[in-house]
Amino acid sequence: MKTILTLSGGLDSTVLLYHLQNQSHEVRCISVDYGQRHRRELRAAAEIAHRARVEHKVVDLSAIRGILAGSSQTSDIEVPEGHYEEESMKLTVVPNRNMILLALAGAWAVSTGSEAVAYAAHAGDHAIYPDCRPEFAQAMAVALGLCDWKPVQLIAPFAAEKRSKADLVKLGASLGVPFALTWSCYKGGEVHCGRCGTCQERREAHQLAGIPDPTIYGG
Amino acid sequence: MKTILTLSGGLDSTVLLYHLQNQSHEVRCISVDYGQRHRRELRAAAEIAHRARVEHKVVDLSAIRGILAGSSQTSDIEVPEGHYEEESMKLTVVPNRNMILLALAGAWAVSTGSEAVAYAAHAGDHAIYPDCRPEFAQAMAVALGLCDWKPVQLIAPFAAEKRSKADLVKLGASLGVPFALTWSCYKGGEVHCGRCGTCQERREAHQLAGIPDPTIYGG
Repeated sequence: MKTILTLSGGLDSTVLLYHLQNQSHEVRCISVDYGQRHRRELRAAAEIAHRARVEHKVVDLSAIRGILAGSSQTSDIEVPEGHYEEESMKLTVVPNRNMILLALAGAWAVSTGSEAVAYAAHAGDHAIYPDCRPEFAQAMAVALGLCDWKPVQLIAPFAAEKRSKADLVKLGASLGVPFALTWSCYKGGEVHCGRCGTCQERREAHQLAGIPDPTIYGG
Repeated sequence: MKTILTLSGGLDSTVLLYHLQNQSHEVRCISVDYGQRHRRELRAAAEIAHRARVEHKVVDLSAIRGILAGSSQTSDIEVPEGHYEEESMKLTVVPNRNMILLALAGAWAVSTGSEAVAYAAHAGDHAIYPDCRPEFAQAMAVALGLCDWKPVQLIAPFAAEKRSKADLVKLGASLGVPFALTWSCYKGGEVHCGRCGTCQERREAHQLAGIPDPTIYGG
């Protein structure tokens, strides 16, 4: 199956890349430069795609900053520290990001005659992200199925199988995922800050999975 | 109601702008530069928004050309002449365009606290455009309703009311729409070519509506 994967350069989508390849998908990866503060992740995505020997495109959507007010990830608002569960983490929400990513992936799928679009939503995605909800994924699956005459299938196996992030670390370790190449930190410095919600989550997932964490944390 | 309208600069979306204003919507307009051959329409959109005194943003998505192979509107493939019903018109389909437009409009809606996104799909939209199907609009309505904690509503009144393009010309005339400012031609020259599918359709709609057509056609 020819599949377009939305690859952020983070842990989840990298595990999905290796998982899809392991299931014999012919994968192409798409990343989007939406002016994110943590654009360091785009370099990670490029390195990961190169290592996995798959085609990778980065779509420059940085002009979108003009319509994305209110998120710490696309403005001068400071990235909140603390745990994902906290109210303050809502600041990291980028409005409608997943619909935009899936729409662009869908366009590339139609252009390349690919049967599917894949994304790495998983059961641990936090309730602060409305566009990680299974109902949202289901609606997008219906829309992608109708966006062209030949249906494009939406694959979100980690959400469907209710896998946690710790499950993904275990799966990734078994597939030889180069975790050290992946990038999670929302602050986007030279090393992972270790304090923002996504750093804390990355660390916890390794601990819960019982897998050594190769990440260098600044704090 | 605060509403984001996807304004192409064409006849349909311009009539919808006037229709929404007539219904007391507080409208903001979004256009997308996706490297379209007929980018002349973006100038039309800016003029129309200025005339209607609404905020207008053009999102530069021209980098997307790299993933949109196969359409005459985003490549060097020649624009087909002839009637919309013809097989050759499939060349003008831009893969997944409406999902991309609605996703960007949805992002701006969330950012601005708008209640709705509007687009001008109508009953005359031709069977060659899969993403003009009512089923597609319905799926996107569900997804937009879930993309944020506060639902964003999708409004496509011309599709819902089964209005034809001739009906839109009649409605627009009654609302004082400046048809001469709108741009339809897929060839994107200095004047409308008069031969491509969308020019033929524009001409026919005026004839069927019995409304004088102010468009200057080159052929």
